[in-house]
Amino acid sequence: MHSPRFYCPQLHSVSAELDDSESHHALHVLRLSAGDEVELFDGTGTWALATISDITRKTVRLAVTESHAANPPQRPRLTVAAATPRGDRMKSMVEKLTELGVDEFIPLRTVRSVAEPRQSKLDKLRATVIAAMKQSRRNSFMSIHEATEFSVVLRQASTQKQSIHLAHPGENSSKPQAGTRGDRILLIGPEGGFTREEVLQATDYGAHQIVWPEGILRIETATITFAALLLNQMQQPS
Amino acid sequence: MHSPRFYCPQLHSVSAELDDSESHHALHVLRLSAGDEVELFDGTGTWALATISDITRKTVRLAVTESHAANPPQRPRLTVAAATPRGDRMKSMVEKLTELGVDEFIPLRTVRSVAEPRQSKLDKLRATVIAAMKQSRRNSFMSIHEATEFSVVLRQASTQKQSIHLAHPGENSSKPQAGTRGDRILLIGPEGGFTREEVLQATDYGAHQIVWPEGILRIETATITFAALLLNQMQQPS
Repeated sequence: MHSPRFYCPQLHSVSAELDDSESHHALHVLRLSAGDEVELFDGTGTWALATISDITRKTVRLAVTESHAANPPQRPRLTVAAATPRGDRMKSMVEKLTELGVDEFIPLRTVRSVAEPRQSKLDKLRATVIAAMKQSRRNSFMSIHEATEFSVVLRQASTQKQSIHLAHPGENSSKPQAGTRGDRILLIGPEGGFTREEVLQATDYGAHQIVWPEGILRIETATITFAALLLNQMQQPS
Repeated sequence: MHSPRFYCPQLHSVSAELDDSESHHALHVLRLSAGDEVELFDGTGTWALATISDITRKTVRLAVTESHAANPPQRPRLTVAAATPRGDRMKSMVEKLTELGVDEFIPLRTVRSVAEPRQSKLDKLRATVIAAMKQSRRNSFMSIHEATEFSVVLRQASTQKQSIHLAHPGENSSKPQAGTRGDRILLIGPEGGFTREEVLQATDYGAHQIVWPEGILRIETATITFAALLLNQMQQPS
């Protein structure tokens, strides 16, 4: 079994301290005590083995025994820009995209979008990312961006030379093709779909139209499914 | 826009009647009235266009205008047998497997399984399947089986000549390969994983060991991800 993992943004080479929330989890949920071994990660690519050295009523101090630079996956980067699904579906979607290894997430503002996450919601989603990193043993954050207009996302994708994959049923749609190299961006529309104008706009940027050939997928199902299919194509063959 | 869809197990060629729950949804949620057009499906492969002909306080009667045999997807069948995730994660998983087009679902009993759905829970999951079929426009049920022992699932898979895909990290694991033809079964273990003995047992049945190369996936994330990857390989190229 692996040691329990804690998020520790100030991860020094010799010692570290857990914040209130992580200390609470260590002491009162997992009931760890001095001498127990744990794993720490700072979210930007460093992780470490550590031993609990000192416990006060609310704080856990640790002695770092080994510090490692995380190995980022050897593949191009995947950004996902998706309209916001209702209720808890957004949280569940962000959790699963983090587990899969998606690099960046952008809440997508489109003509038919109905909801948009507020600042407080975005902060909660960042906490969801960290919780998923503890569970999946991922070491680098999935970045959560501010909600962004469809046209701005397209322009940025073009500037960054990402190949654009637009989930949209239609004559020109196919299953995701393995052909394209380099970084990719996946665009997922709201329940009512992208408008005709949005599809044309994406086409002007050279977007590939992709579709799941069986049935209509909910926002979060489409997002998870296409992210998995694209990442699978981008990973080294095994 | 598509017409709203209703589940109607007794779908005759001329007329039909919605049950209490579907009538309630039609009248009090969607506020439909006489003359409105709807779509009906019986879950076993027939769907129909119909017009509301008669409304009583609790019942909706319909005149069927066109009846169709559903076109099942032109691909081999996929069965998913997965350990039960906690809480609402099971419901969300079944919803997404239905949307994707998975043909059969078996709650998997393994050495390290912690929970197992009771009869009342299985009935609720069947209702979840129907709700997902309304939304995704799928016409044939995803069958939900009783909870079944790992060894029995392996034996049945062998009898039915399904190729076996076991999600398990290890030396012999690889990404799902497109090579195998015919029907497939996907096996997903509990949080603690399959035991060594279970892996050996599956190997004796010729199981392919598959793995997601980045990070450890939760039960439901692994199930949705591998179901999507396997179905994508089994579907006709587009």
